[in-house]
Amino acid sequence: MLAHWDQMVVMPPRGASARAHQLATLEGLAHSLAGAPEVGEWIEELGEAELSEVDRDLVRIAKRDWERARRVPSELAAERAEAGAAGQEAWVRAREQDDFASFLPALRRNIELARAVGQCVADGACSAYDALLSDYDYGLSTDHLRMLFGELGSRLPPIFAGAPQDHSTALHVPLDVQRQAVKGLLRRLGVERSSWRVDVSAHPFTAWMSPQDTRLTTRYEQDGLESLLSALHEYGHGLYERQIDAALHRTSLGEGTSMSMHESQSKLWENHVARSVPFAELIAAELADAGCAFTPQRVRSQLVRLTRSPIRVSADPVTYPLHIVLRFDLELALIAGELPAEELPAAWREGMRRLLGVEVSNDRIGCLQDVHWGAGSFGYFPSYALGCLIAAQLWEALERDLGSREQDLRRGELTSIQRWLAQHVHVHGRRLDTLALVEQATGEPLDVEPFMRYALALAKDGASPAP
Amino acid sequence: MLAHWDQMVVMPPRGASARAHQLATLEGLAHSLAGAPEVGEWIEELGEAELSEVDRDLVRIAKRDWERARRVPSELAAERAEAGAAGQEAWVRAREQDDFASFLPALRRNIELARAVGQCVADGACSAYDALLSDYDYGLSTDHLRMLFGELGSRLPPIFAGAPQDHSTALHVPLDVQRQAVKGLLRRLGVERSSWRVDVSAHPFTAWMSPQDTRLTTRYEQDGLESLLSALHEYGHGLYERQIDAALHRTSLGEGTSMSMHESQSKLWENHVARSVPFAELIAAELADAGCAFTPQRVRSQLVRLTRSPIRVSADPVTYPLHIVLRFDLELALIAGELPAEELPAAWREGMRRLLGVEVSNDRIGCLQDVHWGAGSFGYFPSYALGCLIAAQLWEALERDLGSREQDLRRGELTSIQRWLAQHVHVHGRRLDTLALVEQATGEPLDVEPFMRYALALAKDGASPAP
Repeated sequence: MLAHWDQMVVMPPRGASARAHQLATLEGLAHSLAGAPEVGEWIEELGEAELSEVDRDLVRIAKRDWERARRVPSELAAERAEAGAAGQEAWVRAREQDDFASFLPALRRNIELARAVGQCVADGACSAYDALLSDYDYGLSTDHLRMLFGELGSRLPPIFAGAPQDHSTALHVPLDVQRQAVKGLLRRLGVERSSWRVDVSAHPFTAWMSPQDTRLTTRYEQDGLESLLSALHEYGHGLYERQIDAALHRTSLGEGTSMSMHESQSKLWENHVARSVPFAELIAAELADAGCAFTPQRVRSQLVRLTRSPIRVSADPVTYPLHIVLRFDLELALIAGELPAEELPAAWREGMRRLLGVEVSNDRIGCLQDVHWGAGSFGYFPSYALGCLIAAQLWEALERDLGSREQDLRRGELTSIQRWLAQHVHVHGRRLDTLALVEQATGEPLDVEPFMRYALALAKDGASPAP
Repeated sequence: MLAHWDQMVVMPPRGASARAHQLATLEGLAHSLAGAPEVGEWIEELGEAELSEVDRDLVRIAKRDWERARRVPSELAAERAEAGAAGQEAWVRAREQDDFASFLPALRRNIELARAVGQCVADGACSAYDALLSDYDYGLSTDHLRMLFGELGSRLPPIFAGAPQDHSTALHVPLDVQRQAVKGLLRRLGVERSSWRVDVSAHPFTAWMSPQDTRLTTRYEQDGLESLLSALHEYGHGLYERQIDAALHRTSLGEGTSMSMHESQSKLWENHVARSVPFAELIAAELADAGCAFTPQRVRSQLVRLTRSPIRVSADPVTYPLHIVLRFDLELALIAGELPAEELPAAWREGMRRLLGVEVSNDRIGCLQDVHWGAGSFGYFPSYALGCLIAAQLWEALERDLGSREQDLRRGELTSIQRWLAQHVHVHGRRLDTLALVEQATGEPLDVEPFMRYALALAKDGASPAP
């Protein structure tokens, strides 16, 4: 994680090719240690020991990790890592030139290798895609996702069907003002220099070196408030890792439990805190302090406007999950061999028309917009939409437990939210998998209804012009 | 190296305790891989293969590294690493409070463990100190050092015996001017952002992530030109690693060959470039550009004044090696068990009086000034003085080959020096050990005479007041 953070944030650019080798070496080493025979012996020995509840979980998860690692031959793992690195380079060039054909061979190779890895891990017990999915989100099945995403695909479009595409210009917020407001907001959340870094990178992300060393990045663009949304989003990732039970540190349990739980944490701060009506007052105050006066209403309307963008990372919160529904359908078909890779662009356009009513004019803003498939990641996308669903469900449970957070959000009193998340989600680390954790934290199984309620309310606000 | 650089330069301070664990884990892992049985099998197999000359060197050095690593039991290596970390903490506190007694137990433990490790590596073939030395400088012996350092100890003191301690105040150079001058000088040496970083840290050092990713640090203090000397010094380390033959990259040969060769590279740029008469013109020009006008004569006189400081890192270039002679004598006696640890402070004072004619008023500026023994490093100090000797010998050979560099230095034309160093020193990586490399590069065995000539000339200039 450090080697990656360093590359994205502080490394001199000409260090890149050596860094790729270094990362591959580290990955290979980690893979061979993770599946080493002696680990199996230790686990077997521990199976007969009297253990505390935490230690039993530790052994259970260690065993699961070990078994999954050893099913993938080291050569295949290395081949996949190399193809992913090469594919990422091919993707960068193809995207620059809007040339899908030049990307096709790398894409095919990535699909083949991901399928092969998925089959190894599945070991006949499930589909290759199920196995790939479980790399990011253990316990989720393709069928379950089909059901959840099917609901989103049929029930979300009518919500914004009437709304025209929003072509209004973004709020005029100079870079300096954005920077100062990001700093001010993060300070209210407890982000201070002795224990956090906040840097700039091309694609915002979060890295955690240890519970007291969290590193967010954001990105500043001329105008708009995306830098603030991004910072709050990344803060959610950072906070999750910081609030895991200290007893689990430096064990295999001492991490966020899955990609979708992680994304639920970032989405909670982005969608339910940053985009809330009362928090807009706080943002407006920070912007005013930095020399830019807007009414809270204008701030809020900027944050929730329905843009129906063809680009996932610029999507509004209502249409966002549909971008994922599309990618899920497509990658599932690619791995199953039901969609030939060369037909991806056409399938993409058809899907965007059907789900979002958006015409995609070229592949740069179509199937070449995301790095994931270029880098060889299949099964990762669903976590983005699951994160939206889980965040909405957690937020309803939190307000049921604590009462409406309106007053607290207005005053910037965020401790109660941080604490609730710690107790109900964060402390557990990997002791509970996604579905069990959601059910324990909210009292209900994972469900689309909370998000549908959120989306409906937001669409109403987002579609009405700012007062 | 990245984890260390990160800690010193960009890590939020509260990440420190977890980072200590992480570094210990990495060290343990590296140690167990370095001495792994399968490495021995590969080496044995390769012993029977037809190999190119480079590959033969590769196998020879790999074998040596492997044999040295496996002689030290993992438990002992881990114990020593832990004691070193604890000792370093004890040292920080003891130094702050000038309380040697509180440091004594940690020091004793470090001595014991270093001796034990030395004995394992020596395996009866040499003394424990010889073995410790060879961790940093393979092929050097205690007897050889005794001879070289004996010369320095008897011939250097008369050079400055007559000179009074220099209590003049440092040249008034504001921090901003220093920063701009450091930037300007490094730019002349080819340090640019796409491939280098220049940061600030409490103790200047250099880290190299790969040949195209070199990271220097320096330190800015109110007034004086130490920040410039430091930057040039660290540049020398950085350049060494960048100019190693590309064919050796990512092999065990693709590194600087020893601590003393590394130090010779930094000392060459510090002593023979930065402190030269013509280069003072360049420095004066950079300072003038930054808004501070001094004559080259005043600049030079600042850079070579004989301070006879009790502190090693502030020592002038003439007395510097004597600080090392003292530490060598003492650590040799500590490891041999001939000097009880509790007698160190008294022995230190006596040595400083004898070698430098300096009275040491307390242990903070005496035997508690350096971190090395606290961190468990014994056998490291000699490389600092050897670096001075080798730098002087290389510089004489370089000027013999290329003619006087006076014109080039005055004009800031440094390519000929960089290239000579590449060809005669850097390209070889670890293919030649220190003594063989010095002899091949200069045509003579390692000798004190070049440094004595340098010191004599410098002392004459340094003792005369600036015009």
